[in-house]
Formats: sequence, structure tokens, C-alpha cells
Amino acid sequence: MKKHNFYAGPSILPEIVYEKTKEAIDDFAGTGVSLMSISHRSKQFEAVITESQEIFRELLNIPEGYQVIFVGGGASTQFFTVPFNLLEKKAAYLNTGTWANTALKEAKMFGEIVEVASSADKNYNYIPKGFSVPKDVDYLHITTNNTIFGTEIKEDLDFGVPLVADMSSDFCSRPVDVSKYALIYAGAQKNVGPAGVTVVIIKEEILGKVSRQIPTMVDYRTHIKKGSMHNTPPVLPIFSMLETMKWIKGLGGVEVIQKMNIEKAGILYDEIERNKVFKPTVANPEDRSLMNITFVMNDGFEEHEKAFLDMAAERNILGLKGHRSVGGFRASTYNALPIESVKVLIQAMQDFEKKF
Amino acid sequence: MKKHNFYAGPSILPEIVYEKTKEAIDDFAGTGVSLMSISHRSKQFEAVITESQEIFRELLNIPEGYQVIFVGGGASTQFFTVPFNLLEKKAAYLNTGTWANTALKEAKMFGEIVEVASSADKNYNYIPKGFSVPKDVDYLHITTNNTIFGTEIKEDLDFGVPLVADMSSDFCSRPVDVSKYALIYAGAQKNVGPAGVTVVIIKEEILGKVSRQIPTMVDYRTHIKKGSMHNTPPVLPIFSMLETMKWIKGLGGVEVIQKMNIEKAGILYDEIERNKVFKPTVANPEDRSLMNITFVMNDGFEEHEKAFLDMAAERNILGLKGHRSVGGFRASTYNALPIESVKVLIQAMQDFEKKF
Repeated sequence: MKKHNFYAGPSILPEIVYEKTKEAIDDFAGTGVSLMSISHRSKQFEAVITESQEIFRELLNIPEGYQVIFVGGGASTQFFTVPFNLLEKKAAYLNTGTWANTALKEAKMFGEIVEVASSADKNYNYIPKGFSVPKDVDYLHITTNNTIFGTEIKEDLDFGVPLVADMSSDFCSRPVDVSKYALIYAGAQKNVGPAGVTVVIIKEEILGKVSRQIPTMVDYRTHIKKGSMHNTPPVLPIFSMLETMKWIKGLGGVEVIQKMNIEKAGILYDEIERNKVFKPTVANPEDRSLMNITFVMNDGFEEHEKAFLDMAAERNILGLKGHRSVGGFRASTYNALPIESVKVLIQAMQDFEKKF
Repeated sequence: MKKHNFYAGPSILPEIVYEKTKEAIDDFAGTGVSLMSISHRSKQFEAVITESQEIFRELLNIPEGYQVIFVGGGASTQFFTVPFNLLEKKAAYLNTGTWANTALKEAKMFGEIVEVASSADKNYNYIPKGFSVPKDVDYLHITTNNTIFGTEIKEDLDFGVPLVADMSSDFCSRPVDVSKYALIYAGAQKNVGPAGVTVVIIKEEILGKVSRQIPTMVDYRTHIKKGSMHNTPPVLPIFSMLETMKWIKGLGGVEVIQKMNIEKAGILYDEIERNKVFKPTVANPEDRSLMNITFVMNDGFEEHEKAFLDMAAERNILGLKGHRSVGGFRASTYNALPIESVKVLIQAMQDFEKKF
């Protein structure tokens, strides 16, 4: 019984990743030992780390002077790790949602924080524009995709200050110009792998400028110097992430993935606009996320929300219930979600509309 | 072709754990969704977290007033997290090896550190005794098992100060009296699961006593309050750890595991003592680790080290090469290593001896 997995994360991965992971649990890289029991210092696993760094470099076209590391603790750990490493006096934060705001609050321990703009006034249903950023900040922090509220910054911003981006929920869903960023971080468990590993891409020259002491495991330089092997890394999540990246590469790279994501999100937004029973939560099409498509019952249909969720469940559509901060529905259409699942959802929406 | 996996960690797990993990990658808890793609907020995964807390409580007989949390980042992350949460003025550290010393150095950022004793003078080949601990320290930190040097503190120490123990490499290999500890932490990847998750057992009353600000993810209270679900936890490693703990429970608990470990280590130490070609690195039998059994070529046989490693490799014995700080050999005989593998190693040692 096929499930249509619209979970916001951890989320669907390509079938080949499940298969390759199971094979490796039986016998990792011909060692005769399970992936769950292989030494991280074995040459076979060191090859996984090296290949993982290389595939991110290749697919995201990461320039010289940047390093790629893999760490544990989730993106939430980066909320304090970023200011610990980079914030000497003042940093700017763009407040576009729950996670952006959480990152902002966390940074206050380390210096002065300027909230350059916020969309909190309208429950984060838009991306602020026309704001300015002080030139004397150590960095500007943004959250490119707001998983809960269904908004996304789809362009590479440039305010003339170092740009730090939490890309947890749209990482590798589209090409980005890495040279525009000082630091990018992303929990793997949306578009690039299972939960348990976070990818950080760092412009090396931004490090070493703060005067505070940094704990060894918090210091990005530790992980750069040791090639993400200062201590035992999350072996299996890294392996499965590499297999996910190989799948992306096999399809043609992030440019091809982007086209697929635009198509999936496009047909779903079109249906939300067309269907009398539903309406989008994000008014401005250019602010709408291609990853988390949020919508609610249209005016007059509010009482039927549960009935639609029940219908979706009957059709094996999972993870459609919206976050409690927004209500309604959220369809997460990450890289590995097949367009067929989106079509099943659209069919359910159309069948539901026919009831009225 | 059966491999005998003596890796120091990540290390061998029970076969049933590999099987259960593969099954869950296909279909987690009857959800029709992969373990790698299930929402951590699903009731099925929340049940895994709850059951994991309960099984540690049961098997380690954890008293009331203690909490069990699961976090990422490895035990190395605990090296700074412990003093961040607990060190106000002064802490005592027992220096019994590389990791104990690393933990000690990391703590110096946070307060005054008293090294109460050290075995560095003899390359950490013994456990110091007869030392005293100042009564005014915030805690005493020990490393119960020294993976690299093959020594182990097998009793529950009591110096009348809060005791913090890194049990990464002997956690759940034997019963401990948790009430004697203020905090226990352990990376899973030796005795209780795959790499990617760390277990922390905390006496709640020791928290909240330091004056410094603590980043949210570093603050143990965050993870206690949120039941290890403040952010996305390492889903698969936690699942596989629970399956490992169920296997321990099925055998009869940590008391039975301890007997098995004593038997495995016992026959191997006996052979090292008996065999003319080898000698142990840890002279005092009571200091010898039951987890990492370190030995070297006996006097006059030094030149044959590589020949023995080659013979071991031919017999599918993996991970036997000692850490570079000690040289020689290290046989890690964690919970899941079958006694049959130890017997294969002993046979190889005896056959090797016959050559001379």
C-alpha cells in the first residue's frame, strides 16, 4: 500500500537510498561488516566522507576558499554555533518565522542583535522587502525557507555584509550562488538525507575573528581541520546522505531537481487557487515556498477541515496537517516526493470540492 | 564469510539489530513509511523515545530524580556541555587517558580545574588510586573505561562530591549504582547502538546552579523538558539503540551481559598471560578493561607484530591493530561480540605461538 509522504521532515527519500542503506547494513563496501559497525577510521568510511565533500562541492559549485563539514546536533545547534564563531559585536537577523526568530534570540547571548525586518505582524505570511542592513554588522542571518509558514527567499541576497543562511528546508532543492554566502547550514532531514547530520558550508576567511574562547566541538575550525572526523561522526546518516546526493547527481543535478520542484509546487498552487474550497496562506506568489505548500479552508468552508484530512488519510496521504501556528494544511514537496503523490493530493482536493 | 569484528567503535551490534533496522527502513512500525522518513512527531516515533527512556531506567535501575536524554554530537560534545552546565568555580578531573585528558582540558574554559591524579607517567597503563578530592569542587569527572589504553574503573567511586562519568566505552556492559553519580554520559557506538546518538543520565537537582548563560541546545534542561524532542533527534540511531537495549533485556539484562563480558575478557587475558609471544600492557589485573583488551608482542618477539596482524586478517579478524599511542593490539570485546570470535582470536594466537 503506497503512502504519499508529505511530512515536513524527516521526510521522504528516494527509494534507492533505502535500498543502498539496507545493503550497507548487511555489508558495507564489501568489508563484510555492517555500516552500523564499521570503524569511522576505516578507509572505506573515510572514502564516504571524502566523496560526500566532493559531491556537495560539485553539485553546488562551491568555490575555492570554502569548506564543507558534517556535524551532529541538528540545525538548532547552529543557532548558537554561528554567533559563537562569528559574532564579535553586532549581527543582523531577518525574522521570517519561528526558526528565524529562534536563531535571533539565541544570538542575543553573544552580542547586539539588529532585527532588520520581520513579518511577525502577519503571522509570517510574507517575506519582508525593502529593508536595509547596517554596514557594520558581523553578518546578516536569514532563513531561506520557512517550513512552518510556507515562505521562501528564492534569490541570493546581497547587502554587502557576510551572509549566513539557514537552508535546512530548501538546501539542494535549487542552485544557489555559494559565493554570495559566508556560511550555509542545513539539517539533512528534508532534502538530502535522514535525521542526524547537519551540513555546514563555510567561507574559511570569516573564521578566527572573534575574541572569545570557543569550545573545541563548537569551533568550526576543528571540524575543518579534521575533515569532520575529530570525533566519531554520525556514520549511517552521512552514508545515506551521500546516496541521496548521488541520486540528485544521477538525475542531472540541482538544476534538474529545481525544475521538478517548480513543477510539483506549481500544479499544487494552481489547484489551491482554482479550487473553491481552499485558499493559500501566502498571498504573494513570489514569496511562496516550493518546499512547504501551506493552505487552509476557504472562507465558509472552515468547518470541513477535518473531513478533508480524513479523506486524505483514506487515500494514504500522510503528513498533511498544518503546523499549529498556521492551521489548515501543509504539503511538503521535498526533492524526493514524486509528482504522482502531488497528483493524488490534487485529485483528493478536486473530489472533495465536488461534494459541495 | 564471517568477520570477527574487534573494532573499538563504532563496533559490532547484535544481528537482530541489523535485521530490525532494515525492516524499519522498509516499513516503520506498520506506518507504511520508512524509519528514515518518518516524522519524529509521529506517535510511533514518540513511542520509541518513551520506550528508550523506560528501558534504560529499567535495565540500569535508574532512581527517581534522574532523567534520561538522547542528544547528538557525540561524547566529545559533552566535554564542554558538562562544565557549561555544572562548573561554577572549581571541578576535579581524574586523568586516566586521552579522552579523560581531553575532557579536562576542555573544562579549563569554564573554571579552575584540579587534576586529582594522573597515570600519564606510565602511558596510562594503570588506574591511579589513593588520591583525594577537594570537598569544594562542583564535581569530579572520571572516564570509567579508557578505550585506547585498556584500563577500566569497575567500581562506583564515592568521594562525597557529585560524580560525573564518561562511560562511553563501558556503558551498559555491567550494572552500575546510578545513585552514586550526578551525571553519566555515553556515546552509543560501543555497547548500545550505532554512531550518532549520546545518552545522558542526569540527576536533576544538580542543574540550574551555575550563573552563566547557557545556549538552549547546550542546556540539559532543554532536552529534559522536551523529552529529547526539542529539535529533530537522530531518529534511526535512537531506534537501533532501542533494539540493542531490547536484545540486552532479552538476554536477562546488564547482569547477564556482565557475566558474558567477564568470560570473554577472562579467556583472552588468560591466553595473553599464558602465550609466550604476547604480553598485556596493563600489569594490574584489577585495572584491566573488560571492553578493550590491549596487548603487545612479548620481549624478543617485537619484529613479528605485522606477521600476527596478517595472520589475524587472513582469519577474518578485524580491528585488532592497537591505537598508535600504545601500539601492538587491541581486541574490543563489547557486549555484542560473540565469545566464538574471541575463541577464533585465541586460536590464532596459539597457532602463531607454535611457529616459534
